[in-house]
Amino acid sequence: MPHEIAPRSGVAFTLDRGQRLTIIDPQGEQVADLLAFNRADVREVISAGRTFDYASKIFLTAGDPLYSNRSNIMLDIVEDSVGRHDFLLTPCSKDTFRIIYGDSDPHQGCFGNLAQALAPYAIEEDMIPAAFNCFMNVQVDGTSGAISVDPPLSKAGDRIVFEARMDLIIGLTACSALQSNNGSFKPIHWQVD
Amino acid sequence: MPHEIAPRSGVAFTLDRGQRLTIIDPQGEQVADLLAFNRADVREVISAGRTFDYASKIFLTAGDPLYSNRSNIMLDIVEDSVGRHDFLLTPCSKDTFRIIYGDSDPHQGCFGNLAQALAPYAIEEDMIPAAFNCFMNVQVDGTSGAISVDPPLSKAGDRIVFEARMDLIIGLTACSALQSNNGSFKPIHWQVD
Repeated sequence: MPHEIAPRSGVAFTLDRGQRLTIIDPQGEQVADLLAFNRADVREVISAGRTFDYASKIFLTAGDPLYSNRSNIMLDIVEDSVGRHDFLLTPCSKDTFRIIYGDSDPHQGCFGNLAQALAPYAIEEDMIPAAFNCFMNVQVDGTSGAISVDPPLSKAGDRIVFEARMDLIIGLTACSALQSNNGSFKPIHWQVD
Repeated sequence: MPHEIAPRSGVAFTLDRGQRLTIIDPQGEQVADLLAFNRADVREVISAGRTFDYASKIFLTAGDPLYSNRSNIMLDIVEDSVGRHDFLLTPCSKDTFRIIYGDSDPHQGCFGNLAQALAPYAIEEDMIPAAFNCFMNVQVDGTSGAISVDPPLSKAGDRIVFEARMDLIIGLTACSALQSNNGSFKPIHWQVD
Protein backbone atom coordinates (compact mmCIF):
# COMPACT_ATOMS: atom_id res chain seq x y z
CA MET A 1 0.00 0.00 0.00
CA PRO A 2 1.42 3.42 -0.87
CA HIS A 3 1.79 6.21 1.68
CA GLU A 4 -0.43 9.25 1.29
CA ILE A 5 0.71 12.87 1.50
CA ALA A 6 -2.30 15.01 2.46
CA PRO A 7 -3.11 18.06 0.30
CA ARG A 8 -0.76 21.03 0.92
CA SER A 9 1.69 19.04 3.04
CA GLY A 10 5.05 17.32 2.69
CA VAL A 11 7.25 14.54 4.02
CA ALA A 12 10.91 13.52 4.16
CA PHE A 13 12.35 10.00 4.24
CA THR A 14 15.47 8.07 3.35
CA LEU A 15 15.95 6.15 0.10
CA ASP A 16 18.79 3.66 -0.22
CA ARG A 17 20.96 3.23 -3.29
CA GLY A 18 19.21 0.79 -5.63
CA GLN A 19 15.74 1.34 -4.14
CA ARG A 20 12.91 2.59 -6.32
CA LEU A 21 10.63 5.48 -5.42
CA THR A 22 7.21 5.53 -7.13
CA ILE A 23 5.23 8.77 -7.05
CA ILE A 24 1.57 8.43 -7.96
CA ASP A 25 -1.01 11.11 -8.75
CA PRO A 26 -4.09 9.35 -7.32
CA GLN A 27 -6.74 11.78 -8.59
CA GLY A 28 -4.97 13.40 -11.56
CA GLU A 29 -3.74 16.96 -12.18
CA GLN A 30 -1.68 17.20 -8.99
CA VAL A 31 1.99 18.14 -8.58
CA ALA A 32 4.65 16.70 -6.23
CA ASP A 33 7.84 18.68 -5.57
CA LEU A 34 10.80 16.30 -5.18
CA LEU A 35 14.13 17.12 -3.52
CA ALA A 36 17.12 14.82 -3.03
CA PHE A 37 20.16 15.21 -0.77
CA ASN A 38 23.20 12.95 -0.40
CA ARG A 39 22.66 11.25 2.96
CA ALA A 40 26.42 11.15 3.64
CA ASP A 41 26.79 14.92 3.09
CA VAL A 42 23.62 16.98 2.70
CA ARG A 43 25.51 19.82 1.04
CA GLU A 44 25.31 17.67 -2.11
CA VAL A 45 21.88 18.35 -3.56
CA ILE A 46 19.81 17.85 -6.72
CA SER A 47 20.70 20.44 -9.39
CA ALA A 48 18.50 21.56 -12.27
CA GLY A 49 21.37 23.47 -13.90
CA ARG A 50 23.77 20.51 -13.92
CA THR A 51 21.02 18.17 -15.15
CA PHE A 52 19.95 20.49 -18.00
CA ASP A 53 23.57 20.89 -19.08
CA TYR A 54 24.35 17.16 -19.25
CA ALA A 55 20.95 16.21 -20.72
CA SER A 56 20.99 19.08 -23.27
CA LYS A 57 17.29 19.55 -22.57
CA ILE A 58 14.99 21.01 -19.91
CA PHE A 59 12.19 18.39 -20.03
CA LEU A 60 13.20 15.09 -18.44
CA THR A 61 11.54 11.68 -18.64
CA ALA A 62 12.26 7.92 -18.45
CA GLY A 63 15.91 7.21 -19.20
CA ASP A 64 17.17 10.56 -17.92
CA PRO A 65 19.46 10.90 -14.89
CA LEU A 66 19.09 13.71 -12.33
CA TYR A 67 22.46 15.15 -11.30
CA SER A 68 23.67 16.80 -8.11
CA ASN A 69 25.51 20.11 -7.75
CA ARG A 70 28.69 17.95 -7.63
CA SER A 71 27.84 16.39 -11.02
CA ASN A 72 27.03 12.95 -9.59
CA ILE A 73 23.90 11.09 -10.62
CA MET A 74 21.47 11.00 -7.67
CA LEU A 75 18.41 9.42 -9.32
CA ASP A 76 17.49 7.85 -12.65
CA ILE A 77 13.97 8.23 -14.00
CA VAL A 78 13.09 4.63 -14.87
CA GLU A 79 9.36 4.85 -15.65
CA ASP A 80 7.09 7.76 -16.53
CA SER A 81 3.47 7.49 -17.65
CA VAL A 82 3.07 11.29 -18.08
CA GLY A 83 6.15 12.64 -19.86
CA ARG A 84 5.94 16.22 -18.67
CA HIS A 85 7.45 17.53 -15.45
CA ASP A 86 9.09 20.81 -14.48
CA PHE A 87 12.62 21.46 -13.22
CA LEU A 88 12.69 25.25 -13.72
CA LEU A 89 10.76 26.58 -10.74
CA THR A 90 11.51 26.67 -7.02
CA PRO A 91 8.97 25.30 -4.52
CA CYS A 92 6.00 27.60 -3.84
CA SER A 93 6.44 29.56 -0.61
CA LYS A 94 4.95 32.32 1.52
CA ASP A 95 6.69 34.73 -0.86
CA THR A 96 5.26 33.00 -3.94
CA PHE A 97 1.75 33.39 -2.58
CA ARG A 98 2.43 37.02 -1.57
CA ILE A 99 4.11 38.07 -4.85
CA ILE A 100 2.22 36.00 -7.44
CA TYR A 101 -1.17 35.47 -5.79
CA GLY A 102 -1.34 38.63 -3.63
CA ASP A 103 -2.27 36.66 -0.49
CA SER A 104 -2.12 38.73 2.69
CA ASP A 105 -1.88 35.70 5.02
CA PRO A 106 0.01 33.26 2.82
CA HIS A 107 0.31 29.49 3.26
CA GLN A 108 3.87 28.21 3.88
CA GLY A 109 3.66 26.30 0.60
CA CYS A 110 5.81 23.43 -0.57
CA PHE A 111 8.89 25.37 0.52
CA GLY A 112 7.69 25.61 4.12
CA ASN A 113 6.49 22.02 4.08
CA LEU A 114 9.83 20.79 2.75
CA ALA A 115 11.83 22.91 5.21
CA GLN A 116 9.77 21.52 8.12
CA ALA A 117 10.08 17.90 6.95
CA LEU A 118 13.81 18.17 6.21
CA ALA A 119 14.81 20.01 9.40
CA PRO A 120 15.42 16.77 11.37
CA TYR A 121 18.07 15.88 8.75
CA ALA A 122 19.98 19.15 9.42
CA ILE A 123 18.87 20.58 6.07
CA GLU A 124 18.28 24.33 6.35
CA GLU A 125 15.90 26.50 4.31
CA ASP A 126 18.70 28.15 2.34
CA MET A 127 19.87 24.71 1.14
CA ILE A 128 16.59 24.08 -0.73
CA PRO A 129 17.10 24.49 -4.50
CA ALA A 130 14.73 24.27 -7.47
CA ALA A 131 12.81 21.01 -7.02
CA PHE A 132 12.03 18.36 -9.62
CA ASN A 133 8.32 19.12 -9.87
CA CYS A 134 6.66 15.81 -10.82
CA PHE A 135 3.64 16.23 -13.12
CA MET A 136 4.00 20.06 -13.17
CA ASN A 137 3.27 21.34 -16.67
CA VAL A 138 5.30 24.47 -17.37
CA GLN A 139 5.12 25.53 -20.99
CA VAL A 140 8.04 27.53 -22.39
CA ASP A 141 7.95 29.81 -25.43
CA GLY A 142 11.38 29.24 -26.98
CA THR A 143 11.33 32.62 -28.75
CA SER A 144 10.24 35.02 -26.00
CA GLY A 145 11.17 32.81 -23.05
CA ALA A 146 7.68 33.30 -21.58
CA ILE A 147 6.53 30.51 -19.30
CA SER A 148 3.03 29.49 -18.27
CA VAL A 149 1.96 27.05 -15.60
CA ASP A 150 -0.70 24.88 -17.26
CA PRO A 151 -2.85 22.05 -15.82
CA PRO A 152 -0.83 18.85 -15.36
CA LEU A 153 -1.16 16.19 -18.06
CA SER A 154 -1.42 13.50 -15.36
CA LYS A 155 -4.60 11.44 -15.02
CA ALA A 156 -5.70 9.47 -11.95
CA GLY A 157 -3.18 6.70 -11.30
CA ASP A 158 -0.39 8.13 -13.41
CA ARG A 159 3.09 7.67 -11.97
CA ILE A 160 6.79 8.38 -12.25
CA VAL A 161 9.41 5.99 -10.87
CA PHE A 162 12.97 6.88 -9.81
CA GLU A 163 15.87 4.61 -8.90
CA ALA A 164 18.40 5.93 -6.38
CA ARG A 165 22.06 5.93 -7.42
CA MET A 166 23.28 6.88 -3.94
CA ASP A 167 21.91 6.82 -0.38
CA LEU A 168 19.54 9.77 -0.26
CA ILE A 169 17.28 11.91 1.87
CA ILE A 170 14.14 12.70 -0.09
CA GLY A 171 11.73 15.60 0.42
CA LEU A 172 8.33 15.26 -1.26
CA THR A 173 5.11 17.30 -1.26
CA ALA A 174 1.53 17.40 -2.43
CA CYS A 175 1.72 20.85 -4.00
CA SER A 176 0.08 23.86 -2.37
CA ALA A 177 -0.23 26.23 -5.35
CA LEU A 178 -3.58 26.44 -7.17
CA GLN A 179 -1.92 27.38 -10.46
CA SER A 180 0.11 24.15 -10.51
CA ASN A 181 -2.74 21.70 -10.07
CA ASN A 182 -5.59 23.31 -12.03
CA GLY A 183 -7.26 24.89 -9.04
CA SER A 184 -7.76 22.15 -6.45
CA PHE A 185 -5.59 20.71 -3.70
CA LYS A 186 -5.19 16.94 -3.82
CA PRO A 187 -3.06 14.24 -2.17
CA ILE A 188 0.00 12.46 -3.57
CA HIS A 189 0.85 8.78 -3.06
CA TRP A 190 4.34 7.33 -2.86
CA GLN A 191 6.00 4.02 -2.17
CA VAL A 192 9.51 2.62 -1.89
CA ASP A 193 10.40 -0.82 -3.29
CA MET B 1 39.01 52.51 -17.09
CA PRO B 2 37.31 49.14 -16.72
CA HIS B 3 39.02 46.18 -15.08
CA GLU B 4 39.94 43.24 -17.29
CA ILE B 5 39.30 39.58 -16.51
CA ALA B 6 41.81 37.49 -18.47
CA PRO B 7 40.47 34.62 -20.63
CA ARG B 8 39.45 31.54 -18.59
CA SER B 9 39.72 33.30 -15.22
CA GLY B 10 37.47 34.92 -12.64
CA VAL B 11 37.27 37.53 -9.89
CA ALA B 12 35.21 38.43 -6.84
CA PHE B 13 34.53 41.87 -5.41
CA THR B 14 32.00 43.77 -3.32
CA LEU B 15 29.19 45.87 -4.77
CA ASP B 16 27.29 48.30 -2.53
CA ARG B 17 23.55 48.85 -2.63
CA GLY B 18 22.84 51.51 -5.28
CA GLN B 19 26.11 50.96 -7.18
CA ARG B 20 26.04 49.95 -10.83
CA LEU B 21 28.04 47.10 -12.29
CA THR B 22 28.74 47.28 -16.03
CA ILE B 23 29.91 44.11 -17.77
CA ILE B 24 31.40 44.64 -21.22
CA ASP B 25 32.23 42.11 -23.92
CA PRO B 26 35.30 43.87 -25.39
CA GLN B 27 35.81 41.61 -28.42
CA GLY B 28 32.33 40.14 -28.91
CA GLU B 29 30.97 36.59 -28.55
CA GLN B 30 32.26 36.08 -25.01
CA VAL B 31 30.32 34.98 -21.91
CA ALA B 32 30.63 36.17 -18.28
CA ASP B 33 29.16 34.05 -15.48
CA LEU B 34 27.76 36.29 -12.74
CA LEU B 35 27.03 35.25 -9.14
CA ALA B 36 25.68 37.41 -6.32
CA PHE B 37 25.62 36.75 -2.56
CA ASN B 38 24.16 38.88 0.23
CA ARG B 39 27.22 40.37 1.94
CA ALA B 40 25.48 40.29 5.35
CA ASP B 41 24.69 36.56 5.05
CA VAL B 42 26.23 34.64 2.16
CA ARG B 43 23.65 31.86 2.46
CA GLU B 44 21.35 34.22 0.55
CA VAL B 45 22.25 33.76 -3.09
CA ILE B 46 21.01 34.54 -6.59
CA SER B 47 18.27 32.11 -7.68
CA ALA B 48 17.28 31.28 -11.25
CA GLY B 49 14.18 29.39 -10.09
CA ARG B 50 12.80 32.26 -7.98
CA THR B 51 13.57 34.77 -10.75
CA PHE B 52 11.88 32.68 -13.47
CA ASP B 53 8.81 32.24 -11.27
CA TYR B 54 8.32 35.95 -10.51
CA ALA B 55 9.23 37.11 -14.04
CA SER B 56 7.10 34.41 -15.73
CA LYS B 57 9.89 34.02 -18.29
CA ILE B 58 13.34 32.46 -18.60
CA PHE B 59 15.03 35.16 -20.73
CA LEU B 60 15.79 38.32 -18.72
CA THR B 61 16.76 41.79 -19.95
CA ALA B 62 16.61 45.51 -19.00
CA GLY B 63 13.81 46.14 -16.51
CA ASP B 64 13.96 42.66 -14.96
CA PRO B 65 14.97 42.05 -11.33
CA LEU B 66 17.14 39.08 -10.28
CA TYR B 67 15.86 37.46 -7.07
CA SER B 68 17.61 35.56 -4.30
CA ASN B 69 16.68 32.16 -2.85
CA ARG B 70 14.91 34.19 -0.10
CA SER B 71 12.76 36.03 -2.70
CA ASN B 72 14.52 39.37 -2.26
CA ILE B 73 15.67 41.41 -5.25
CA MET B 74 19.49 41.38 -5.40
CA LEU B 75 20.08 43.17 -8.71
CA ASP B 76 18.06 45.01 -11.34
CA ILE B 77 19.10 44.83 -14.98
CA VAL B 78 19.05 48.51 -15.96
CA GLU B 79 20.69 48.47 -19.41
CA ASP B 80 21.26 45.71 -21.94
CA SER B 81 22.58 46.18 -25.48
CA VAL B 82 22.34 42.45 -26.32
CA GLY B 83 19.03 41.10 -25.03
CA ARG B 84 19.98 37.44 -24.73
CA HIS B 85 21.57 35.88 -21.67
CA ASP B 86 21.25 32.49 -19.99
CA PHE B 87 20.09 31.63 -16.48
CA LEU B 88 19.51 27.90 -16.99
CA LEU B 89 22.99 26.42 -16.81
CA THR B 90 25.49 26.06 -13.98
CA PRO B 91 29.07 27.32 -14.40
CA CYS B 92 31.32 25.10 -16.53
CA SER B 93 33.55 22.91 -14.36
CA LYS B 94 36.06 20.06 -14.44
CA ASP B 95 33.03 17.76 -14.66
CA THR B 96 31.51 19.75 -17.52
CA PHE B 97 34.71 19.37 -19.53
CA ARG B 98 34.97 15.68 -18.61
CA ILE B 99 31.31 14.79 -19.33
CA ILE B 100 30.47 17.11 -22.25
CA TYR B 101 33.85 17.64 -23.94
CA GLY B 102 35.54 14.34 -22.98
CA ASP B 103 38.69 16.11 -21.69
CA SER B 104 41.06 13.82 -19.82
CA ASP B 105 42.87 16.67 -18.01
CA PRO B 106 40.05 19.22 -17.65
CA HIS B 107 40.37 22.94 -16.90
CA GLN B 108 38.74 24.03 -13.60
CA GLY B 109 36.32 26.16 -15.62
CA CYS B 110 34.18 29.04 -14.43
CA PHE B 111 33.13 26.93 -11.45
CA GLY B 112 36.71 26.47 -10.25
CA ASN B 113 37.53 30.11 -10.99
CA LEU B 114 34.48 31.30 -9.04
CA ALA B 115 35.17 28.96 -6.12
CA GLN B 116 38.77 30.22 -5.91
CA ALA B 117 37.78 33.90 -6.12
CA LEU B 118 34.91 33.54 -3.61
CA ALA B 119 36.79 31.45 -1.02
CA PRO B 120 38.09 34.53 0.87
CA TYR B 121 34.43 35.51 1.47
CA ALA B 122 33.68 32.15 3.17
CA ILE B 123 31.66 30.97 0.17
CA GLU B 124 32.11 27.25 -0.40
CA GLU B 125 31.86 25.30 -3.66
CA ASP B 126 28.54 23.70 -2.73
CA MET B 127 26.99 27.17 -2.30
CA ILE B 128 27.52 28.04 -5.99
CA PRO B 129 24.19 27.87 -7.87
CA ALA B 130 23.28 28.38 -11.52
CA ALA B 131 24.91 31.66 -12.57
CA PHE B 132 23.41 34.50 -14.58
CA ASN B 133 25.43 33.89 -17.73
CA CYS B 134 25.80 37.30 -19.39
CA PHE B 135 25.77 37.14 -23.21
CA MET B 136 25.39 33.32 -23.22
CA ASN B 137 23.00 32.31 -25.99
CA VAL B 138 21.11 29.17 -25.00
CA GLN B 139 18.30 28.36 -27.41
CA VAL B 140 15.36 26.36 -26.07
CA ASP B 141 12.91 24.30 -28.13
CA GLY B 142 9.62 24.86 -26.30
CA THR B 143 8.14 21.60 -27.62
CA SER B 144 10.90 19.06 -27.00
CA GLY B 145 12.76 21.03 -24.35
CA ALA B 146 16.03 20.56 -26.26
CA ILE B 147 18.63 23.24 -25.60
CA SER B 148 21.60 24.29 -27.71
CA VAL B 149 24.45 26.59 -26.78
CA ASP B 150 24.83 28.95 -29.75
CA PRO B 151 27.37 31.74 -30.39
CA PRO B 152 26.61 34.83 -28.28
CA LEU B 153 24.76 37.69 -30.01
CA SER B 154 27.15 40.20 -28.39
CA LYS B 155 29.43 42.31 -30.58
CA ALA B 156 32.60 44.12 -29.47
CA GLY B 157 31.68 46.75 -26.88
CA ASP B 158 28.26 45.37 -26.03
CA ARG B 159 27.34 45.63 -22.37
CA ILE B 160 24.83 44.80 -19.65
CA VAL B 161 24.42 47.01 -16.57
CA PHE B 162 23.09 45.92 -13.15
CA GLU B 163 22.12 48.03 -10.15
CA ALA B 164 22.56 46.47 -6.70
CA ARG B 165 19.51 46.40 -4.44
CA MET B 166 21.50 45.18 -1.43
CA ASP B 167 25.17 45.04 -0.37
CA LEU B 168 26.60 42.16 -2.37
CA ILE B 169 29.58 39.98 -3.03
CA ILE B 170 29.90 39.42 -6.77
CA GLY B 171 31.66 36.57 -8.57
CA LEU B 172 32.41 37.13 -12.28
CA THR B 173 34.28 35.21 -14.97
CA ALA B 174 35.50 35.31 -18.52
CA CYS B 175 34.04 31.98 -19.55
CA SER B 176 36.21 28.92 -20.08
CA ALA B 177 33.96 26.77 -22.29
CA LEU B 178 34.52 26.78 -26.05
CA GLN B 179 30.87 26.02 -26.78
CA SER B 180 29.71 29.18 -24.98
CA ASN B 181 31.87 31.70 -26.83
CA ASN B 182 31.98 30.32 -30.37
CA GLY B 183 35.32 28.58 -30.00
CA SER B 184 37.78 31.16 -28.66
CA PHE B 185 38.71 32.32 -25.17
CA LYS B 186 38.50 36.08 -24.68
CA PRO B 187 38.63 38.60 -21.82
CA ILE B 188 35.72 40.36 -20.10
CA HIS B 189 35.73 43.95 -18.87
CA TRP B 190 33.82 45.29 -15.87
CA GLN B 191 33.48 48.49 -13.90
CA VAL B 192 31.61 49.74 -10.85
CA ASP B 193 30.08 53.24 -10.77
